[in-house]
Amino acid sequence: MAKRKKHFELTHSLGKISVCNLGGLDEIGKNISFIEYEDQIIVIDCGLGFPDENMPGVDLVIPDTSYLEKNAEKVLGIFITHGHEDHIGGLPYLLRNLNIPVYGTRLTLGIIKSKLAEHKLGFEPALMCVEAGDIIEIGPFSVEFIHVNHSIADACALAVKTPLGYILHTGDFKFDLTPIDGKVMDLKRISEIGAEGVVLLMADSTNVERPGYTPSESTVGKSFDQIFTAHPENRIVIATFSSNVHRVQQIIDCSIRHGRKVALTGRSIVTVVGAAIELGYMDFPKDEIIDIAEVKNYPDREITIITTGSQGEPMSALYRMAFRAHSSVTIGKNDLVVLSASAIPGNEKLVGKIINELYRQGAEVYNDTYTRTHVSGHASQEDLKLMHVLAKPKYFMPVHGERRHLMEHRKLAMAIGMDSANIFVPETGQVLEIDEGGAKFNGTVQSGNVLVDGSGVGDVGNAVLHDRILLSQDGLIVISAAVDLLARDVVSEPEIYTRGFIYVKESEELMEEMRGVARDALEHAVFDGRNDMPEIKNEVKGAMSRFISSKTKRRPMVMSVIIDV
Amino acid sequence: MAKRKKHFELTHSLGKISVCNLGGLDEIGKNISFIEYEDQIIVIDCGLGFPDENMPGVDLVIPDTSYLEKNAEKVLGIFITHGHEDHIGGLPYLLRNLNIPVYGTRLTLGIIKSKLAEHKLGFEPALMCVEAGDIIEIGPFSVEFIHVNHSIADACALAVKTPLGYILHTGDFKFDLTPIDGKVMDLKRISEIGAEGVVLLMADSTNVERPGYTPSESTVGKSFDQIFTAHPENRIVIATFSSNVHRVQQIIDCSIRHGRKVALTGRSIVTVVGAAIELGYMDFPKDEIIDIAEVKNYPDREITIITTGSQGEPMSALYRMAFRAHSSVTIGKNDLVVLSASAIPGNEKLVGKIINELYRQGAEVYNDTYTRTHVSGHASQEDLKLMHVLAKPKYFMPVHGERRHLMEHRKLAMAIGMDSANIFVPETGQVLEIDEGGAKFNGTVQSGNVLVDGSGVGDVGNAVLHDRILLSQDGLIVISAAVDLLARDVVSEPEIYTRGFIYVKESEELMEEMRGVARDALEHAVFDGRNDMPEIKNEVKGAMSRFISSKTKRRPMVMSVIIDV
Repeated sequence: MAKRKKHFELTHSLGKISVCNLGGLDEIGKNISFIEYEDQIIVIDCGLGFPDENMPGVDLVIPDTSYLEKNAEKVLGIFITHGHEDHIGGLPYLLRNLNIPVYGTRLTLGIIKSKLAEHKLGFEPALMCVEAGDIIEIGPFSVEFIHVNHSIADACALAVKTPLGYILHTGDFKFDLTPIDGKVMDLKRISEIGAEGVVLLMADSTNVERPGYTPSESTVGKSFDQIFTAHPENRIVIATFSSNVHRVQQIIDCSIRHGRKVALTGRSIVTVVGAAIELGYMDFPKDEIIDIAEVKNYPDREITIITTGSQGEPMSALYRMAFRAHSSVTIGKNDLVVLSASAIPGNEKLVGKIINELYRQGAEVYNDTYTRTHVSGHASQEDLKLMHVLAKPKYFMPVHGERRHLMEHRKLAMAIGMDSANIFVPETGQVLEIDEGGAKFNGTVQSGNVLVDGSGVGDVGNAVLHDRILLSQDGLIVISAAVDLLARDVVSEPEIYTRGFIYVKESEELMEEMRGVARDALEHAVFDGRNDMPEIKNEVKGAMSRFISSKTKRRPMVMSVIIDV
Repeated sequence: MAKRKKHFELTHSLGKISVCNLGGLDEIGKNISFIEYEDQIIVIDCGLGFPDENMPGVDLVIPDTSYLEKNAEKVLGIFITHGHEDHIGGLPYLLRNLNIPVYGTRLTLGIIKSKLAEHKLGFEPALMCVEAGDIIEIGPFSVEFIHVNHSIADACALAVKTPLGYILHTGDFKFDLTPIDGKVMDLKRISEIGAEGVVLLMADSTNVERPGYTPSESTVGKSFDQIFTAHPENRIVIATFSSNVHRVQQIIDCSIRHGRKVALTGRSIVTVVGAAIELGYMDFPKDEIIDIAEVKNYPDREITIITTGSQGEPMSALYRMAFRAHSSVTIGKNDLVVLSASAIPGNEKLVGKIINELYRQGAEVYNDTYTRTHVSGHASQEDLKLMHVLAKPKYFMPVHGERRHLMEHRKLAMAIGMDSANIFVPETGQVLEIDEGGAKFNGTVQSGNVLVDGSGVGDVGNAVLHDRILLSQDGLIVISAAVDLLARDVVSEPEIYTRGFIYVKESEELMEEMRGVARDALEHAVFDGRNDMPEIKNEVKGAMSRFISSKTKRRPMVMSVIIDV
């Protein structure tokens, strides 16, 4: 360190690093960060998020990457930490506008490939396959992939070597000392990098509110064994996250030990497990897996079904099985359903709805409150402290969490001795500048949520969402009429149409009154003076809105469609 | 017991009791049950629920009470266990159609009174004030109010004596051995009734998934003391449930001990605490409470603010303080905000949103994960077992919970030795019949959700909700035109209006294409053969829907408003 410092003093020319997150700091997720040094940029991850309750009809949310697109000539490549949607889902949209090489491990690229295939980009992006331990020299950076444990295989942290020292980006991680594939996170390398000098630590904040340590994935296997032993006669249905290949492996292993065949159902689980088998991330005799349509040919005690739907997703395989809409399986009295997942905040009610229906069909249901059939993939408080102690960063930027998590992570770093002046809690788009003299936030770049709806990207904005929410609250009233403006004559009496407003057949009286209001307002407007169509329309619309509001205490959207013939 | 049995054999004339729940057994809540014996009915509670994500624009959900209204001459009265919305909120709507006496304790009736005042029924319902221990003789029943602990004062269980034995309805309860008002739940009376003979136990299932015992309300006071001691210089803002009078009392007591004045903000907390003070349920020197507008005249260290908004409700006082929209208080760097409440399932994201914003304003935030500032008002597993052991019921019907909770409660009863044949897990509207020979489900009465929207009760049904959801997904396209059907002529070219579909200014090209599609379809329909208006409208609508779907992968609602002039 003394040597390095001397070097700093001699040259004063190490330049400035800018670090920025274009997502991953709020409720929507969609992780993406970039690092810029002397007009050269590398990007880390490019995820998607799911719409919140203020974005009705929106399918996906992706990050606004216009800063990267405007600086296309500077962007050298994108480095992917792991294959979860909130880290890779935005990639097809970014690559469409910015054809840069994508670096990732084998399973990560395998998942990206099948995603890109769906999107039909029209060109083949350069997918550069790396292994943990690899170092990619790229512009002024060298990017090292470091193996971490997480709820998906082949996950990595990234150590980005810069002229000012290492930027260590943890990706999503946990410490698992007894992982299913035997590959413990590379603590040695992290401690070496910590010793060499980490100028900035960017660390996962997801579980910062949880005290203690996150248990090993292998603890779940023991719980499955207990459940299988206690329920030898039941058909067992297990719902879990499709990308948790190690969880699926444990369920298959346990099924084999208990003499059960395994069937998979749900599009994403069939796809991901298929890719994992093909790439050699799973290991079992092929004939242990049967087609879901074959389940009916086996007695219940010889069957395990692994399914999607652990978050209560409507139309997921578990949902369809519970609500008798699945083509091969219907849940019944001899089924034991295990939810090997915890509800992601916001999904509790959907999960509850499926559990209620499973019980209604006669099944027994175990969720993870009772049985230890789920562990998190993210570091808890004590794990995070260990990461900080190993990395020994000069500066710290909590990432991957909502504001509340980032602020808790700040407190955690302070509790183990970090100076609050060296901790930078970012907002989306805010740029942290680091040079030899210090670090400070300096400005922002364009950032935000780009909404994807159908095949449209970014054509649904706030005004459109506002109208959708309005329409969903009290529905719509359309008043149509034809007038002859020159002759000051109402050619065709007003007709009223409603959608989502009121049950018309039982409200004939109200409809009749509404027609009267429209007629009066229209005649007044046409006969008594309004000269142009916008004024006439407004007058009719205003009269109707006032009448409806006073009569029903509701505020439907009112449209007056008046034609001058 | 032997004697009773002999009595049964001698007479065979004890008749039949019917027990039914018109709500309280699903995600919506709205608790209401009734007991019928020889054409005489008593009702227990009449609550409301809040709309789920499939009921956009709906304000409230109340139970369908048409069975009671059709049998109005049989209904003797309604007995209220406690003053929470999910037990009293439907009362104004029921009383409007069925003017029956309402029995409840003093605080419960106080809250009901202010609720009825808002509804302007046009008559004064008979509110019959009782105390715990009172027994009301009514028709063939005698109804005894038994003091229980809960998160609102003056809560009771009901022991309904019938010719076949007691029906014990627990209401919402917990066992609190150190309650704030010193009044421990009347365990002695429950055990006496158990000894006399409980034919049916109907018990609260809310917390059946929680192991152990529910802690005493008084444990929360100690946590407040610790927090106040650790933060002598901060202004302290505490959000809690407005009806938890004992919680508010503890916060006031703690504030007085620490030399702080207390201000209340949020309509419901001001109302409920006002009623509780007036009725003598709270005890403190009057000048300890100041108006919220006075807060600015005191240093931070001398102020505690008690507020609504613990569930993240938009426009609640806490929400407004966080988002800088409160008339008197803005959250800032010296504020410590304590959430003395846990998020009700479904509210997690809303609560998270407020916490994020509070942090963003610079406040410190404690939620109940870190600090023991909240305890539940419902019995946990061990408490429930104690209730079963004391009541020793012949038959058991779990109530007050979703299907999953009722089924867990069934398991709990079986685990302490109850025969599964004596446990009846009801669906809404299902009638349990009990006579000397046994108990069985026999038929159902009309039941369901009645939706309240604005001033309308029950005029929003499934078709209306379906349209609202559709409109909220991809918005609306209206095509208007005028034709002369006789002359087979298009008088006025089609105009296109959209709402919630797409940002029009950036989509001129698409709009132009849409006009073309509408024009072609309309001309084809008018010139080439469609004779009546419905056919023409359908053809135009269909052509537009197909075009939009193929072009944008969206399915907005399309209306064709075509006038024959």
